[in-house]
Amino acid sequence: MQHELKIYNSLSRKKEVFKPINPGKVGMYVCGPTVYGEPHLGHARAAIAFDVIFRYLKFIGYKVRYVRNITDVGHLEDDTNGLGEDKISKKARLDQVEPMEVAQYYTNLYRQALASLNVLPPSIEPVASGHIPEQIESIQKIIDQGYAYESNGSIYFDVRKYNENYKYGELSGRTLEDMLEGSRELEGQEEKKFSADFALWKKAEVEHLMQWSSPWGMGFPGWHQECTAMSIKYLGLPFDIHGGGMDLKFPHHEAEISQCVGAHGCHPANYWIHNNMVTLDGQKMAKSKGNYISFQQMITGEHPLLEQAYTPMNIRFFMLQAHYGSTLDFSNTALKSADNAMKRLTNALKPLSLLKGNGSESQDKALEEKILYLRMQCYDKMNDDFNTAEVIANLFEMSSIINTLHNSATKASILSETTVQLLIETYKGFIQDVLGIAAENEGSTDDKLDDVMKLLLDLRNQAKKDKNYALSDTIRKELTAMGISIMDNKDGTTEYQVN
Amino acid sequence: MQHELKIYNSLSRKKEVFKPINPGKVGMYVCGPTVYGEPHLGHARAAIAFDVIFRYLKFIGYKVRYVRNITDVGHLEDDTNGLGEDKISKKARLDQVEPMEVAQYYTNLYRQALASLNVLPPSIEPVASGHIPEQIESIQKIIDQGYAYESNGSIYFDVRKYNENYKYGELSGRTLEDMLEGSRELEGQEEKKFSADFALWKKAEVEHLMQWSSPWGMGFPGWHQECTAMSIKYLGLPFDIHGGGMDLKFPHHEAEISQCVGAHGCHPANYWIHNNMVTLDGQKMAKSKGNYISFQQMITGEHPLLEQAYTPMNIRFFMLQAHYGSTLDFSNTALKSADNAMKRLTNALKPLSLLKGNGSESQDKALEEKILYLRMQCYDKMNDDFNTAEVIANLFEMSSIINTLHNSATKASILSETTVQLLIETYKGFIQDVLGIAAENEGSTDDKLDDVMKLLLDLRNQAKKDKNYALSDTIRKELTAMGISIMDNKDGTTEYQVN
Repeated sequence: MQHELKIYNSLSRKKEVFKPINPGKVGMYVCGPTVYGEPHLGHARAAIAFDVIFRYLKFIGYKVRYVRNITDVGHLEDDTNGLGEDKISKKARLDQVEPMEVAQYYTNLYRQALASLNVLPPSIEPVASGHIPEQIESIQKIIDQGYAYESNGSIYFDVRKYNENYKYGELSGRTLEDMLEGSRELEGQEEKKFSADFALWKKAEVEHLMQWSSPWGMGFPGWHQECTAMSIKYLGLPFDIHGGGMDLKFPHHEAEISQCVGAHGCHPANYWIHNNMVTLDGQKMAKSKGNYISFQQMITGEHPLLEQAYTPMNIRFFMLQAHYGSTLDFSNTALKSADNAMKRLTNALKPLSLLKGNGSESQDKALEEKILYLRMQCYDKMNDDFNTAEVIANLFEMSSIINTLHNSATKASILSETTVQLLIETYKGFIQDVLGIAAENEGSTDDKLDDVMKLLLDLRNQAKKDKNYALSDTIRKELTAMGISIMDNKDGTTEYQVN
Repeated sequence: MQHELKIYNSLSRKKEVFKPINPGKVGMYVCGPTVYGEPHLGHARAAIAFDVIFRYLKFIGYKVRYVRNITDVGHLEDDTNGLGEDKISKKARLDQVEPMEVAQYYTNLYRQALASLNVLPPSIEPVASGHIPEQIESIQKIIDQGYAYESNGSIYFDVRKYNENYKYGELSGRTLEDMLEGSRELEGQEEKKFSADFALWKKAEVEHLMQWSSPWGMGFPGWHQECTAMSIKYLGLPFDIHGGGMDLKFPHHEAEISQCVGAHGCHPANYWIHNNMVTLDGQKMAKSKGNYISFQQMITGEHPLLEQAYTPMNIRFFMLQAHYGSTLDFSNTALKSADNAMKRLTNALKPLSLLKGNGSESQDKALEEKILYLRMQCYDKMNDDFNTAEVIANLFEMSSIINTLHNSATKASILSETTVQLLIETYKGFIQDVLGIAAENEGSTDDKLDDVMKLLLDLRNQAKKDKNYALSDTIRKELTAMGISIMDNKDGTTEYQVN
């Protein structure tokens, strides 16, 4: 009997049994990137964390509608108070191009990076600038309910008014007093009744590059509004899961909750999931902090902090070795050891596919029990708030069993066919479908390399039989020099591995 | 002196010298796919035709803003009269999913197919459903000018009224009389004043899945309107080039012209370019005709008409062997011969990179002249309405020169360094940058295969020296059996080719 799926709900601050609103179906919304810069490790972590959740929910049979947005407008420079310039159009003016051209360029980079990380595309990938009518409608509802006011052509959310009937700050645990203490005196603040009020719609100056007409004049939506409008449009209200990076809890997700409650009187989502950050010496890695490593730098190795280039799968596996809720500190050592660990797991896939049980029952009952236990553990650990780190530990134990079975004289015939099938399904399923670890360098040249290597190893074996050790040694040495190691098995066959 | 770039303008029906509106810059809009089905060869041809135009304009120094849309709403089932059901939402109801989920799915397939065909992403890829306010604004302008009318909550373009002041049908060469003859009596026609009038906005029934509010009630835009709104938004008015498949001339592009002229009093674009169709026994290949081959089927070979699988580069090269304005008849023979032709060209890239001229002047003046002539021809042929077929013919001549130079005892030292550099730049530039032919199977395993093959060929050469012909023959035979052919050069080196 598997455990029920439990999710750590950031809103209730405890693990809760997951109960979908519609049986068998899950609606999940995750905040995507603001496309004004190159994708970095922070983007990769969020995308991978929710990709695994998306994959696992599908793996255990849910039909999932996964919506992840692209913010191409409305992300104000100063996130905390709704002032400042639109990030996208600022970059556009620097480059002297149309803002949507900048957005498209970085959107493409983001999609390419995620594809190479084997992150599945979401079911729907809506863009903020493509949902202006929906955002205007959503703002109008908040105004109608009395929780927003117009000021000089802009619309602000009335935090104090909202707080009279609801609780502003319930997700982040902040109080109005906390917010007041942290607020700064900035230009434009005089438009607001209260410094913690945030912009739903900003009046646009004539020279502003991205603007639309609205009942309140020409302007553009505040950053928080898009996620409210798009999540409800595509998932209904309420939906099951809302996710995003921990840095978005405040003000973004707090604002989303209050916008939704203000307009509709109910919370948008039942479960809030937040992935933790990638850190560098304990500091959050982010473009705005200047201490970040871009995805491109990671895979080329061109960054002063990088000792080598890392493959996308190496990066993915490194991230999955930690629970999504823990911080992940960047280090070359950790990445390299992740690579070795990943290869240990993926190298067992080939011998796994060669295992064959017997037609009746298992002779080694203890081993059978161990396999069934490990299989159950994989599910249990994923059901325990998607604990990929623990799943990987179980898979290591399985890989040892696989290698032992493969190298034994009896092969897997001491096990029943059913048990062997369960082992294969679980091991392959969790590595490839749930964790999303894809074999690197797949494709036709790989097959050719395999063919050519087989010929070369046959020549070497023939040379050994002919006692031409000079030749057989040369072949081994040359292969080692080009990074291919060969292992002679007891049964006379030889395997190779590209390092 | 190179010829000026000339473009066959479908509107004037003649080749015209290309004069950009802003010196050094080009704005180009091309109609993208309606994302309600799998990408097929027709999609591939349009994308490749305009990709090469995009690439060449950049190659000769223009800064190009290339906009290609995604139609995710508003493409009515019966294209010619603006009636019928929305294609996207019809498919959605069949699949029981959200229309945007269907659109996203097919958009992803389209993008993946194009990426594998080495089609560059456009500068901006706007989606129709993301530009509702812009379309409403555009429709309102036409109403204000008196060229559209409301009828039962829908807005129709008034073709006869327009024809009083302008000429409806100037792109397609159709007259109002032609249109009347071809029109059918269909349900809903009674809403229109004239059977050739087309929908700008359609009233939505309550159960219609995609609808937005407008000054005329809930509804959705007609198919033609999105391209008018989005092209003008991102390229200004007028812009340089409007492109699309020849099947879009009428009614789509005709409607675009009249919508723009009706609203703004001027034509949208200075040059109209139309790519021709992929045919099968002379019939247009298209999903609506049921005689189409999907892109996926082409690359897997799983279609009764296909004798084998074809690589994306093979398909790309096959399409470039014809001028974009000619029909391209599908056949297995033509595709296979395209593959051989492409390999002849790409195989010359490696010897090309090894050529080295001398420091002073060319000794073989005739050869130098020939090279400079061929180089000029590559530009001249592209300048002659992007004649890729003729460019390829020139590149073949160049490849023969390259191979001769490579195999000669003097190598390329009979030519000056400048001439050799021009040869390299032109050959590589036109194959890789202009035609966009990418080496297939690039990457690290390729390098490993190269290393292993080198070792194997060294062993074979040693065997020949040792007069161990049994061994050297075995190696050759085994390699041939696995699809690798080897060629012994006169200088004692050996090359191999993966077939």
